[in-house]
Formats: sequence, C-alpha cells, structure tokens
Amino acid sequence: MAGNTFGKTFTLTTYGESHGLALGGVIDGCPAGVKIDVAAIQEDLDRRRPGQSAIVTQRKEPDTVEIHSGIFEGVSTGTPIGFSIKNTNQKSKDYSHIKDSYRPSHADYVYDQKYGIRDYRGGGRSSARETAARVVAGSIAKQFIAPVNVTAFVSAVGELSIENPHHIDDFSTIENNPVRCPDPVMAAEMETYIKQVRKEGDTVGGVVTCVIKNVPIGLGEPVFDKLHATLGQAMLSINAVKGFEYGSGFAGAARKGSAHNDLYNEDGTTKTNYSGGIQGGISNGMDIYFNVAFKPVATIMQAQETIDKKGDKVVMEGKGRHDPCVVPRAVPIVEAMAALVLADFSLRNNSSKV
Amino acid sequence: MAGNTFGKTFTLTTYGESHGLALGGVIDGCPAGVKIDVAAIQEDLDRRRPGQSAIVTQRKEPDTVEIHSGIFEGVSTGTPIGFSIKNTNQKSKDYSHIKDSYRPSHADYVYDQKYGIRDYRGGGRSSARETAARVVAGSIAKQFIAPVNVTAFVSAVGELSIENPHHIDDFSTIENNPVRCPDPVMAAEMETYIKQVRKEGDTVGGVVTCVIKNVPIGLGEPVFDKLHATLGQAMLSINAVKGFEYGSGFAGAARKGSAHNDLYNEDGTTKTNYSGGIQGGISNGMDIYFNVAFKPVATIMQAQETIDKKGDKVVMEGKGRHDPCVVPRAVPIVEAMAALVLADFSLRNNSSKV
Amino acid sequence: MAGNTFGKTFTLTTYGESHGLALGGVIDGCPAGVKIDVAAIQEDLDRRRPGQSAIVTQRKEPDTVEIHSGIFEGVSTGTPIGFSIKNTNQKSKDYSHIKDSYRPSHADYVYDQKYGIRDYRGGGRSSARETAARVVAGSIAKQFIAPVNVTAFVSAVGELSIENPHHIDDFSTIENNPVRCPDPVMAAEMETYIKQVRKEGDTVGGVVTCVIKNVPIGLGEPVFDKLHATLGQAMLSINAVKGFEYGSGFAGAARKGSAHNDLYNEDGTTKTNYSGGIQGGISNGMDIYFNVAFKPVATIMQAQETIDKKGDKVVMEGKGRHDPCVVPRAVPIVEAMAALVLADFSLRNNSSKV
Amino acid sequence: MAGNTFGKTFTLTTYGESHGLALGGVIDGCPAGVKIDVAAIQEDLDRRRPGQSAIVTQRKEPDTVEIHSGIFEGVSTGTPIGFSIKNTNQKSKDYSHIKDSYRPSHADYVYDQKYGIRDYRGGGRSSARETAARVVAGSIAKQFIAPVNVTAFVSAVGELSIENPHHIDDFSTIENNPVRCPDPVMAAEMETYIKQVRKEGDTVGGVVTCVIKNVPIGLGEPVFDKLHATLGQAMLSINAVKGFEYGSGFAGAARKGSAHNDLYNEDGTTKTNYSGGIQGGISNGMDIYFNVAFKPVATIMQAQETIDKKGDKVVMEGKGRHDPCVVPRAVPIVEAMAALVLADFSLRNNSSKV
Repeated sequence: MAGNTFGKTFTLTTYGESHGLALGGVIDGCPAGVKIDVAAIQEDLDRRRPGQSAIVTQRKEPDTVEIHSGIFEGVSTGTPIGFSIKNTNQKSKDYSHIKDSYRPSHADYVYDQKYGIRDYRGGGRSSARETAARVVAGSIAKQFIAPVNVTAFVSAVGELSIENPHHIDDFSTIENNPVRCPDPVMAAEMETYIKQVRKEGDTVGGVVTCVIKNVPIGLGEPVFDKLHATLGQAMLSINAVKGFEYGSGFAGAARKGSAHNDLYNEDGTTKTNYSGGIQGGISNGMDIYFNVAFKPVATIMQAQETIDKKGDKVVMEGKGRHDPCVVPRAVPIVEAMAALVLADFSLRNNSSKV
Repeated sequence: MAGNTFGKTFTLTTYGESHGLALGGVIDGCPAGVKIDVAAIQEDLDRRRPGQSAIVTQRKEPDTVEIHSGIFEGVSTGTPIGFSIKNTNQKSKDYSHIKDSYRPSHADYVYDQKYGIRDYRGGGRSSARETAARVVAGSIAKQFIAPVNVTAFVSAVGELSIENPHHIDDFSTIENNPVRCPDPVMAAEMETYIKQVRKEGDTVGGVVTCVIKNVPIGLGEPVFDKLHATLGQAMLSINAVKGFEYGSGFAGAARKGSAHNDLYNEDGTTKTNYSGGIQGGISNGMDIYFNVAFKPVATIMQAQETIDKKGDKVVMEGKGRHDPCVVPRAVPIVEAMAALVLADFSLRNNSSKV
Repeated sequence: MAGNTFGKTFTLTTYGESHGLALGGVIDGCPAGVKIDVAAIQEDLDRRRPGQSAIVTQRKEPDTVEIHSGIFEGVSTGTPIGFSIKNTNQKSKDYSHIKDSYRPSHADYVYDQKYGIRDYRGGGRSSARETAARVVAGSIAKQFIAPVNVTAFVSAVGELSIENPHHIDDFSTIENNPVRCPDPVMAAEMETYIKQVRKEGDTVGGVVTCVIKNVPIGLGEPVFDKLHATLGQAMLSINAVKGFEYGSGFAGAARKGSAHNDLYNEDGTTKTNYSGGIQGGISNGMDIYFNVAFKPVATIMQAQETIDKKGDKVVMEGKGRHDPCVVPRAVPIVEAMAALVLADFSLRNNSSKV
Repeated sequence: MAGNTFGKTFTLTTYGESHGLALGGVIDGCPAGVKIDVAAIQEDLDRRRPGQSAIVTQRKEPDTVEIHSGIFEGVSTGTPIGFSIKNTNQKSKDYSHIKDSYRPSHADYVYDQKYGIRDYRGGGRSSARETAARVVAGSIAKQFIAPVNVTAFVSAVGELSIENPHHIDDFSTIENNPVRCPDPVMAAEMETYIKQVRKEGDTVGGVVTCVIKNVPIGLGEPVFDKLHATLGQAMLSINAVKGFEYGSGFAGAARKGSAHNDLYNEDGTTKTNYSGGIQGGISNGMDIYFNVAFKPVATIMQAQETIDKKGDKVVMEGKGRHDPCVVPRAVPIVEAMAALVLADFSLRNNSSKV
C-alpha cells in the first residue's frame, strides 16, 4: 500500500518524477464556494522554484501550474481539483553516473531494493521536485483556511540561528532577502555563509520555523490524529527533514512543570505559550509554532567513495546545479504542508458535535 | 471525523476513558498464523502500569487484559483481535475541583470547547490511561515483527542526560532500575532527582530514546508516509510529547554535507549512520534510532491560579497520586507505538513489487 | 489489509467470533451531544436475537450489550463508543463434524484456504452472529440521524411476495407478526410456508425491503461513494445477501426513458420516484427505497455429500438449531446498516460547501 | 469528505468535468514491475468512446490518454501513475437551456442543492464522461491481475435478453457487433430495437453481465469488504446503474437450500455455482459472475416539463448527440471497475497470513 495521499477529508494525492512528462496531483474534498486566486498559487510556486536567487540551484524550471478541473468561474465547485506542472527541463542529460551507482545519503539504494526498478533520472520520485505539487495544493488550502495565517521563515543555517524565533511578530522582512530570514542582520550573515559553503563544494543544513495565527479553537482529533502529531508527520514527510518540535519542544523536556504550565487568562487565552497553541492535541486558539530541522543536502561537489549496483566501489562527485542549502526554498513547502493540515482538520472539526 | 485509529493495514482502534467501564481496542489486519504469547502482553502492560516503583504514581490499577477474539488455540486467525481492560479504580472520588474548572496545560478547556461536553473524571479520554490499549496492541505487534527488535529507554530527565544514547548496545540494564536508563550511574542520579522534584510538589520532563534493530530494507511509503514521518506521528500522538528527531536530528541541521553523508560499505551497509536507518523515507537496514521529548507532567502539587467554566479565577492544586516524571512509564508506550508502525509498514511493503 | 471497519467518518469497527469470549465493536466519529437511549439499542438487539419466535432458530442467546465508553450521563461525548456482547452460549459442544470438513455453501473452505487456520466453532467469524455488533451501532446511528427514519420489512419469502413493497405507508403492522411482513395476510402465508420448509429439514430465501423517509437533500459523495453505491456495499456485506437494487432496480432496465424519468413538481419534489430518492448518487429528498435478496440458509437438516480437509468425501447433516429462513431476523440488520450509511453521509455532507 | 478515490491498496483517484481542460486520475499502489502496454489502454478507451458505432452517441471525442508518471521504460515503478485525457470537444456550445433549469432524472438539481454551484456544461462532474478515467485505470489493473480475466457483455436491452448469460463460454463474438452481445441473433434484434427507440426520440435501459475467470482462492476481506460487496459498490458507482446481483442473485432468494447449495468435488471445486464464485465474501476459485442493471438514459429527444432554478415550470427537450442505450459503451466500464476491485483485493490478500 503506497503513500501518496495526504489528509483524510481535504486530501492531496500527488504523482510525478523529476524527469517524466509532468508532475501534479488531485485535491479532493475542497469544499465548494472557495474563491481561488490562481495567480497566488503561481506566486507560491515561484517562491519554491529553482533559479530564484544567487544562493539556490541555478536550474531553470518555470514550473507553471495548469488547473484541469474543479474550479469554475474562479470558484471551487466541490469536485476534485486536478492540476499538473510540465517537466520542461528534461534534456537528455548524462545520468550514467547515477544510473548504476548509489549516491551516499540519497534514496537510490533503497528504491532499488524496495521496488527492484528505479527511474534514476534526477532522482525520480525521490527528488524534492515532487514538492511543487504540495505547494500548489497548499496554496489552495491557504485560500480556504483564511483568515488563518501560516508563515514560515528560516531561523537557522548551520550554526547561525536567531533566538526565540516564534516571538517574531514582524514577518514583513522575510521575503526581502534570499535566505527568507526575518532578521536582516542574521539574513546577511547566513547568505554570506551559504555562498562560502557553496564555494567549498559543500552544503549545510538549517531550521525552518513556522508560526500559525488566527487558529480557531478545537482543531485536532485525539488520540492518534492530534493536531501536532499530524503537523509532525506533514513536516517529516518533506525531503531532508530530520526533526520536528512544537511549543517548548526539546527544551521543554528539561523544564519543571511549575515553570512550564501555561496559566489561563480570564478569556481562555494563556499568559505563556509553552504549549505552542495546542493542548491534548487540540488547538487552543493561541499561536501555533514549531521548528523543522533540515539536514545538509546530500549532493556535494566533492569526490565521495560509494558503491555501484554490483557492490563495487566507485568514486562519485556531484554534477550539475544543486542547492548548497535547502531551507530558503523549503519555506513555502513548510507553509504548504501546514496549510494542508489546517484545512483537513478544519473540515474534520465540522463533525465534532451536533 | 475522529482520530482513534492508527495504521492503515495493521490497524489499532482504541476506546476508553479514565473512569468508564473499561478501555480497550480492536486490532484489525494482524495476519493469521502469528503465535501470541498473552503473558508477554501482560508483562508490557505491567511495565506501563501505575504503582510499579517508588518514582511513579502510587495509584493501584492492575490493568489486566482480556482478549475477546481473533486468537484461537494461541495463534492469530486473521480476524480482528478485540480486547479490553477493566477500569477498577473508579471510586466515587471527588472531582468537583476539575468538573467546572480548567487545569493549566491540561486538555480540559479544549475538550469543552470542541465537544461541548466532557467526561471530567480523571481527565476522561485525554488521560494517558488510554495508552494502556496501545501497549496491548504494540505487544502483539512486537510478536508479529520479530526478529525486528524495538528497545526504548530513558536518555534524559530534566537537565540530566546520557550522551550518544543510540550508540548504546547493552540494553540488559534498562529494566534493572526504576528510571529505565541503561547507564546505572546516571540512572541513580535521575532517580534521586525525580524524588527531589516530587518532594517539591513539582514535576519534570525528559527524553526517551528508541533503537530498532534487525530492520529489513524497504519499509516506508513515500512520499507522505515515509517511515520516519509515521514514526514521528506515532510518537507525537503519545500524551505529553513535544518533539521528535531521528538520526542526526536537530544537531544534523547544523552540519555540513561532507560531514553528514553516510558512505557505503560494499555490502550496502553504511560506515556512519547519521541517516538513522532511513533514506528517502525507506529503511536501509541500519539501526533506526530516534528521540522523543516529553514535557513535565502538568499536574503539580502546588497551588496554581486558573479559571472555571464561567471564566472566573480560581486556585487549584493537584490532588491524588500523580507521576512526578512521565518518562519511565513512557518507555513501553514508545516501544508499542514503534512496533505498531513497523508492523504496518511490514504489511504495506508486501505489495511494493510483483 | 483486513476489512472490519465500515464507514469513513461515522465508523464502526467490529470484532468477534461465534464462540469466543465476546463480540463487540468501536464506533468512532459519533458527534458529541447525541442523547443515547441504551434501552432502544437493546430493543433492536432483541429483534435480531435467536429464540424470539417459533420460525427462527431456537438457540438461547440473551445478547446483552455493555457500553464501555463514549457515553457520559446519557449523552455521547465525541470520543469512541466501545461496546461488547458476551458469548454466553459456548458449551463445549461437539464440533468434530465441521472441524475437519467443509459445509457446502458455507465459508469453511475459503477461510482455511485464505488464512490457513479457522476457528471452526459455530462458523467463527463467518457466523452471522457478528451482525449483533452492527445492530448495536446501527441503533446508535438511528438515534443520531433522527428524524431520518429507516424501516425495513420482509417483502418476499421463497416465491411468496408482496407487490410494490415501497408503496407501503403503514409500517405499524410489521412487528405484529414473526415474519415482519407488513401485509398481515401474506405474513400468515409466509409463516405457514416457513414452518413447512423447516419440517422438511430445508431452508428458503427471501427479500427484505427498506424505506428511508425524511432524508435531507445532498447526501452522497460522487463519483465513487454515491449514496446508493455505499448502501449497496452495506447490504451486500450482510451474510447471505445475493443482490441489491434501489428505485426501479432491475425492472427499470427494461423500461424506456420516457416512461422512467421523474418529472419535477415546482417545489423540487418529483411526481414519480423511479429514482428511489437518489439522483447522480446524491439524495434528492424523496423516499429512498431498495430491495435486498437473501439466499436460503446453507445449513439444512438433510444429508449432503461434501469433502474434508484431505479432499475425501464425507456425508454431513446439519446439527443443532438453525434458522429455516433468515429474513425475519435480517430486518433489524438491514436497518442498522442503512442507518450507519446515512449517519456517515450526514457527517460527510457537513463539508460540501463553505 | 468527498468520494473520488476508489480502492484501498490499488487506488484510483479521478478528477475532471465534461468540459474542463482535461480529466484524469492518479493510480497509487500499482506494484513495481508490471509491464504496461499503453496501446492496450487506448484500445479499452476506444471501446468506451463516443462515435464508435451507429447505435451510440455521434459526438467526436478522440480520448487520447497521456501518461505523466509512474511508468519507466515500459514498466511500472511502484510510484503513482498520473494520467490525463484532454477535453477536445469543448466548443462554446449553447448551454443556456440547462444552465438555469434542471433536467429530469439528471443530477443537476441535487448538485445545485449540495454544492451551491454547478459546472453546468455537459453535466460537469456528473457526466458519464468521467468514466474514461476509470477505463484507463481499469486497463492497467487488467494487465496487473492477468491471468485473471474479466469479460463483460450486454445480456439485456429493454425486454430483450439472453438466458443464463453466465453460462456463456465463447466470448469471441462479443466485439463483433455494436451491441456487444455474445449471441449474434439476439445482438441483431437488440441493434434493431435500439435504432427504433432512437427514432422515437426515446432511450432504453439494459443489463451488462460480467464473468471473471482464473480467480485465485482467497480474495475478499470480511466482514464489511466482502468481495461481492465491493464489486457491488464498484458497479453501483457507475452512472445509471440501478441494481447488482451476483451468483444466483434475486432468483436465488426464491429457492430452497437443498436446491441452492453448491456441493464440493474432491478438488475443492463445486458441482454447481449458485455462489457465483464467492463464499462468505471470499473467492473460492470458481468463476465469478454478476449482473448490472442500467436505467434508460435520462436525456430524451422529447419535450418534457421541468423546473428552473426559481421553481418555475419550463419545457425542455434533449439537444445534441446522446446515447439511445448506454449498455454497449458501459461494457468496458464494467470491466474496468471489476478489474480495479480484483487488483485491490489481490494486494490486500498479500497480508492475510504470515
């Protein structure tokens, strides 16, 4: 049983390899009557696409979305929304170096083991290119859940990080720098650092923080589909993610209860928000915030020893244009997955009580 | 749409409140032909139950499992396995202090908001008591997935922690101390610390580490149901969990690719294991390991200001017998959820190729 | 992947064999705030139970439901409703005649082939005894969907049948006779016929008709989960069912469009109702009606040649107390499954539009 | 929660309206390693397409399938198979007669009521045009399940019908006549009748029979996902279907057990096959056969009184080119849905026992 559908009521099913004819997906369960701004979808796609700045991969992929169905006269009709994005950058590139060999810390080896066959061109289905479909669907989800507002940004690149990122209130500066870090000083440092790492033929990891505002009380479905558990799955399903924490997170594990409990104000809000906007798996109306850890990109421009299909040693070196650091382009993907989760739980909550 | 079913092929559906007649569940999809050792299930339950040591809650709940169906002459028949555990500790205790008021950092408030009604006795469905059903099912899952071996232990209590917990190879000492920490010296320190915290009427958080050995290659279903994504959801669905990281985790986000890639040996194993046994969402045969962060228990034996249903301020203080630190009893729960994930993906992988 | 869960939002997961400790189930997704009359559940169970009249099996099984969770102070809480029914009639009866042999037109053979093991006592999971759990859940569903009203009755026994059963408006006589046929004259004939068939050591099939009134417009989810498609699956999942038709059914296939179209009145109702209350898979507010065909019970009190596990010929004859005709006891089961479908689609329709 | 996904392990999610940009779908769960003959898919599509003979609608729609992903070098890769079919026949036709009025026995009215908006062009999502996506996926399913063989044919048109259609063994004549009836004499009668009905501006219903050969023992998942129950749902989800029966069907309800039981041969096959190849919801290795009843097409070329959105009476008459009888073109759709069911249960059965 495969796993290319996300969500239970507002669902996204995606398809597509890096170098097939097209990638795309089907959104099923978007309620009728949502005004859909297709230009806004394209804007989110453009935030994810390669070649947008000097610190990301320089590949050229326009990534234009085509909506096939489900939207009529600018409004969702309640029927499934099918969409596709053509793969335009499919030159008959030389893939012989990865066709029969396994790139370290890539999925080449496990795909061959699991499926017995692998579309090796550009990583096939394991390429982060598949996240373009998530961004399309997430952008539609954002439009559905408004005024719930999802904002992600880069809070760490390598050892460089901003403190208490979830306390940031001014998101206006995020898109002003190619790193997508809301602190302009830190953003400049990070940019310099990424350029230096690239010059070394190396890559570096980072952290994306996400803050969700205007969340209604009541989203989340205990005991297994707690809101933060599904947010966690959503984030961990993004390529290169190694960790997820919400609210006080790992730091909270070191605290005492007397220093961690969120006391109530008389209106039901809380004086502190170590809970990260979620109690018992259900949103409590406070801001939801969480951190997502991304590993360094596995493709480096340095020679590495690896093995081929026969188990013989070979030396490999990254070719082509790759991201030295994935987090700037991951920002719209984190937002998309968060929006899909919120959309799904909004619908699920429609049936909580009579 | 509620969320009390976990898994897609090896599924667990649970029910039960802290003070209803019973709690229990149904496992659907356990293949026929698995020898089931009911005594082993009870042993796992006993590792979770209250009153087992001086550092956990002193409530008395025998938690005896009754199997209703699905096992015949000691072997699973392929039909659903129904089971229940009676709630024996349901004295007509005085719950007036929580009936109309909301305990800080508990789910009382959000349940009332979401459902409009709440079984306030002992936390109702939001009580960690529901995890007993998970332990029963997880114990059956363990028996199904053998020789895959799931071991969890405590790696941190408050600021006390062991280093590189996933490098630990000797698990024989874990059950020798009430903390369930494999390092006896650290275990003693942690035990002393927990007792001190309890004396203060306070609580403290901690971290559980889990290591899974003998994992076959190929488990995990991209792109959304990556193995680690579902493990993350599983862990985050446990009461009090705030974070999940696997392999290099959050620390990996600070590293460079050249220092993070796992190079292959000629047999397909890797020289290092920053990947945590999972590549592209699919197990690669190396050990899987991950950390789970638990917040401090919200019920403290100190007066706290809170609000009642009308929004008026009230002062509340924990009553009864509660855990000063949840991680020792969380160990079998982490194992159970991990085993359920592995069981589910084992079955799902049966259909990966013709 | 097993199949013991029905429904997608209002879900029922059942378990239990004929002779295990108990059978039961879990309802997940019943919204909070539904007043639950447990006595009404027991009444529906009593309509299904053996021994209720002279024309059904004379086994004694009290079938008392125990609610474990999910209902607090008489009202559903939005948490899962667990329930069980003890198997009290489990004397160490002699099952040697079916342990190693396969009863004709029973599931013994295919269970052995599929699972490699079979709880042979009383048919195990393939026994119609499992439908008791459906009746419990269906009774709760009925209470949730009120004032939608589901009524089933017997419209045919063998060759005896009433005409245009869906035109019947007076349901008050159904429970006045043991056949559950609303036409008292036909009911008496059917009763006499069933008794004669039993005397012959034989069995006979029949048809149950179901009429659903007060259905809101809009239930049903094209294109695969059309309302009638799911009703069909629900009915066909009941033991011994061989066919399902709704509205004009098979007779409609012989008609011309000009004689089959339902013309509208100005209020959106239709002048005729060949559509059976469903257009394009969505309820249109007219009465829903359908027929369910049941085969004759396979256990007959006559010697039949069959085979044992080794493939050797053996002669078998029904033992014990069996139903000569299943339809009178099937009436509450048909109602239960219909109510579960309606409950599920009621919730699903909550998310059709913004 | 919408309903555009069919299957649980071999799944099809479809999208598309009659007059949008394209229709299509995603198959998720097709195992890796299946050789896919794209020409065979197109052949099945051509059996469904309009304009193929004198007795079906004369619309011109080439219906060419484009595969976007999931097939590499002619073999399935285990990743999702995305595909689309462009809508080429979307001239700016005049739809004013159905934009604001409700065609009798069509879904116009209920779509407006359920969703509050409707893509009225050509019926939108309720058009049988969506079944083209089913045929594509069903054709791939057929290739996966081979040597299981699914054959459907027309067994009745109006009052004209062939007897014991499931006894037919020679399927070679089916595609030799435009009706797709295996009996050439009856086929000619049916063809003449359909032409006459069309001349009258009328339509007529019919029955499609399906026979599945070479079925392995063990497919089907009790208690809710019995093989015939899911086949029933699959068939009833096809546009215009009013009834489903398998094996002895409705006729079986009139029989006695002694005349209905299928006695075993020593090899486990049965002497008769009233069971229709399924016992207790599980295939027993005998031929599966079932009948599907289709109502007459609702669009007739005769004036009918109906209502508009305001509830005012209007007179309507079918325009354009429509099928006088739907069953000839329904044959490949019935086959497709049957193949999808078999593919899904084949995979599900992989996990029945250890």
